[in-house]
Amino acid sequence: MFVYKTQIRLHDTDAAGIIFFANQFKIIHDAYELLLEKFGFSFPEMFKGGKYFLPIVHAQSDYKAPLHAGDKITVGITVGHIGKTSFSFEYTIHNAKNVLVGTAKTVHVTINPKTSKKVPLPLKIRKALEVFSKQK
Amino acid sequence: MFVYKTQIRLHDTDAAGIIFFANQFKIIHDAYELLLEKFGFSFPEMFKGGKYFLPIVHAQSDYKAPLHAGDKITVGITVGHIGKTSFSFEYTIHNAKNVLVGTAKTVHVTINPKTSKKVPLPLKIRKALEVFSKQK
Amino acid sequence: MFVYKTQIRLHDTDAAGIIFFANQFKIIHDAYELLLEKFGFSFPEMFKGGKYFLPIVHAQSDYKAPLHAGDKITVGITVGHIGKTSFSFEYTIHNAKNVLVGTAKTVHVTINPKTSKKVPLPLKIRKALEVFSKQK
Amino acid sequence: MFVYKTQIRLHDTDAAGIIFFANQFKIIHDAYELLLEKFGFSFPEMFKGGKYFLPIVHAQSDYKAPLHAGDKITVGITVGHIGKTSFSFEYTIHNAKNVLVGTAKTVHVTINPKTSKKVPLPLKIRKALEVFSKQK
Repeated sequence: MFVYKTQIRLHDTDAAGIIFFANQFKIIHDAYELLLEKFGFSFPEMFKGGKYFLPIVHAQSDYKAPLHAGDKITVGITVGHIGKTSFSFEYTIHNAKNVLVGTAKTVHVTINPKTSKKVPLPLKIRKALEVFSKQK
Repeated sequence: MFVYKTQIRLHDTDAAGIIFFANQFKIIHDAYELLLEKFGFSFPEMFKGGKYFLPIVHAQSDYKAPLHAGDKITVGITVGHIGKTSFSFEYTIHNAKNVLVGTAKTVHVTINPKTSKKVPLPLKIRKALEVFSKQK
Repeated sequence: MFVYKTQIRLHDTDAAGIIFFANQFKIIHDAYELLLEKFGFSFPEMFKGGKYFLPIVHAQSDYKAPLHAGDKITVGITVGHIGKTSFSFEYTIHNAKNVLVGTAKTVHVTINPKTSKKVPLPLKIRKALEVFSKQK
Repeated sequence: MFVYKTQIRLHDTDAAGIIFFANQFKIIHDAYELLLEKFGFSFPEMFKGGKYFLPIVHAQSDYKAPLHAGDKITVGITVGHIGKTSFSFEYTIHNAKNVLVGTAKTVHVTINPKTSKKVPLPLKIRKALEVFSKQK
């Protein structure tokens, strides 16, 4: 499991006083970016090199308890599935009292950015995911 | 079906050149806010009056084709289910060529903002949803 | 003056109950994008064609009255200055009662995206700005 | 000087490949929130307690070099002025090579949230600002 610690910012909230639901997706993506970085991937390189992109084709979140500005949270990421041309990540969000306040999932496909067609997972990504999925 | 027409803004996109996935949730919520307004509800009143909130407890999106800055889109909303203490909306997003580029769903519960406990759907909301669900 | 009418979205606000200050910049940029479109420019083309970018090198906003979710606003844009390698826009934001609730300014330079060096305003942009600056 | 280290997220960027200008304001506000927290203030308490709000009445940013997704940055905050009913903060943003890539400023007033009228800076804030302004 990859762990990312952060806190809810004022701009994550809305006039209802709690996190705006779409911003939970932003936060889990922040964690995902750090995980990719740990894998040795970099978005700028990916965008320049242009051999493949990893667009999200499905995303979902559940909201179990309200989050307020300033709340400290811990995002955990685990691998969901590793397919031929896709993979998924699952996310948990716990608050400072270690209560599960939300979960999320993102499904990614590997595409050729020039043709927008699906391509098999690059070996480097498959390896990184397989190693990561065995870590505790 | 409620229809909302808008276009992708530069700030909806990211360095991959297309919409950042979380921003699709923002856009469908914009449509939802206009629908609530049409129903006669207003967020500021809801937040002040304080009898009930309609937090989102689940949200999901599918992404079928890339959206770029400037792309004109049409968001359609229909009712999913109407339960005792919850309801859901389903969303379609079509581009200017009338291609379905994305779908989404949000599940809302009615809670008492003071206790954070679920309460039955207020009659006014139930009525509005029932009437709306029969419209074409 | 170019006029853009919109309304404050829930995601523009924060837990203080009013617009989060940075989102006023998003909204004026939405108006700016529509103005560029009216001029015949398109961001996707600009990014692909790659002859010049128009990055913002300075931005400022004043906030004169609070804006709440659902508030109808009118953004007005006028040209500030037209220089050799730069230009600026000035923005006013009025609420539904025609009260001036905010102002803003953005300063743009024209650069060569490959070298990141300043280049003279392309003639097409200079013409569009000059014509626009004479409109009422 | 208060120092906050972070990195540019994919959602801070837009299709031009660099940070969307409005998001620089979000990032400096993240730093400001951490500074307030260090002072002993908390937004949720401020919003509940309701004795005063610190709305931003003016904000400005300069952009000196492009920032890309993944770029590590350091935000520094110093006090600008301390007035009777207002104060300001000044921000610097340096990249990983210690190059100044941006600056910003925010001007805040203290208001009574019920009347929206300006009130003198609460003593606790004045003290915190004065102590902070003498730190190096």
